Amino acid sequence: MRIDILTCLPELLVSPFAHSIVKRAQDKGLAEIHVHDLRQHAINKHGQIDDYVFGGGAGMVLRVEPIAAWMDALQAERPYDAIIYLTPDGQTLRQPLANRLSLFQNIIMLCGHYKGIDERIRQTYITHEISVGDYVLSGGELGAAILVDAVVRLLPGVLGNEESALSDSFQDDLLAPPVYTRPAEWRGQAVPDILLSGNTPKIEEWRHEQALARTQARRPDLLL
Amino acid sequence: MRIDILTCLPELLVSPFAHSIVKRAQDKGLAEIHVHDLRQHAINKHGQIDDYVFGGGAGMVLRVEPIAAWMDALQAERPYDAIIYLTPDGQTLRQPLANRLSLFQNIIMLCGHYKGIDERIRQTYITHEISVGDYVLSGGELGAAILVDAVVRLLPGVLGNEESALSDSFQDDLLAPPVYTRPAEWRGQAVPDILLSGNTPKIEEWRHEQALARTQARRPDLLL
Repeated sequence: MRIDILTCLPELLVSPFAHSIVKRAQDKGLAEIHVHDLRQHAINKHGQIDDYVFGGGAGMVLRVEPIAAWMDALQAERPYDAIIYLTPDGQTLRQPLANRLSLFQNIIMLCGHYKGIDERIRQTYITHEISVGDYVLSGGELGAAILVDAVVRLLPGVLGNEESALSDSFQDDLLAPPVYTRPAEWRGQAVPDILLSGNTPKIEEWRHEQALARTQARRPDLLL
Repeated sequence: MRIDILTCLPELLVSPFAHSIVKRAQDKGLAEIHVHDLRQHAINKHGQIDDYVFGGGAGMVLRVEPIAAWMDALQAERPYDAIIYLTPDGQTLRQPLANRLSLFQNIIMLCGHYKGIDERIRQTYITHEISVGDYVLSGGELGAAILVDAVVRLLPGVLGNEESALSDSFQDDLLAPPVYTRPAEWRGQAVPDILLSGNTPKIEEWRHEQALARTQARRPDLLL
């Protein structure tokens, strides 16, 4: 999978892509992530890429030209399966959408900043508008980092143990059960006996009950 | 506001906190962000902080001791208003929760990793369990970065223009209307006339209609 990210803050994305799972995926040649600076196609020598909002009001808007120049250049090189704009008014990211995106070959992610981007970019280039949640962030960069992590970890061969991704929360519409590790007792708090019993079928039954009870208590909406 | 973050991947969080709004908040002395390495309290010389899950299964679990050591050390220095664990089975982050957290003085954020953390840590220390969305990530670090950004930008004085944060999507339960900037015409696509009219009351009316129509089309759940 190849992911091209367009941003006015490329330096913000350096460390999230240089560690952990996303680094491992790149080292193994399973994902290629290219972060591109919108300022490279600024409209003047001062590096300008934004402008005042038409109609008045606070905040700056990203102009069409720097984004269009990158879109045209990238699309001239290869076809893209999805051109995603990270925006709070997009479709809310949930696990099934991450699963579907993980099947794509080439993806562009555009990060908004300031007050947003000129609407004509959305109409001209964007195929998917995605929000990582119902809250306001300073820009789309952290949303892009989230989306990259959520998708790249699903690529076959990225995680050490295939089972690990499939048993996570949300993959079966249940929250994960509680987990414990050594020591078996800590400050008077003991691990549930069942987990030390070695009785695997009983343990799986307990985990399923716990997962169900936790989902019922915290996220009954997932069980509808 | 002071935010202490506990993580086994402190290096992943370097660039998100060194740029943009979060950097500005720190430069202005409005927010202090301290990222702490769980390995500093590893259980042995090999830097071990995790262990196999009791009861069998894939994935490693963060042990209690390294986390407890940090929690005890930090709480000995000052009282904390919230000790947050970033976890997919937590309360879903939405703007009102970010608003409430922005009123706190001292916050700890604990990032999970691997298969999660020992349940006894959750029972002993955690006051808030928060999820940034219904998807699986490799760890809590990006969730913490999101939460820091969402909260810090609300602190008075952080954004250049106070109006900017309040007119964002979600602060009034409406998605933002489309925005446009120069040029007024681009590849045959013109900016809506109304925005060039200079008639501010009409423009505000148009924006409200557009915001309402967009919310109705994309997120009718927000209007209920």
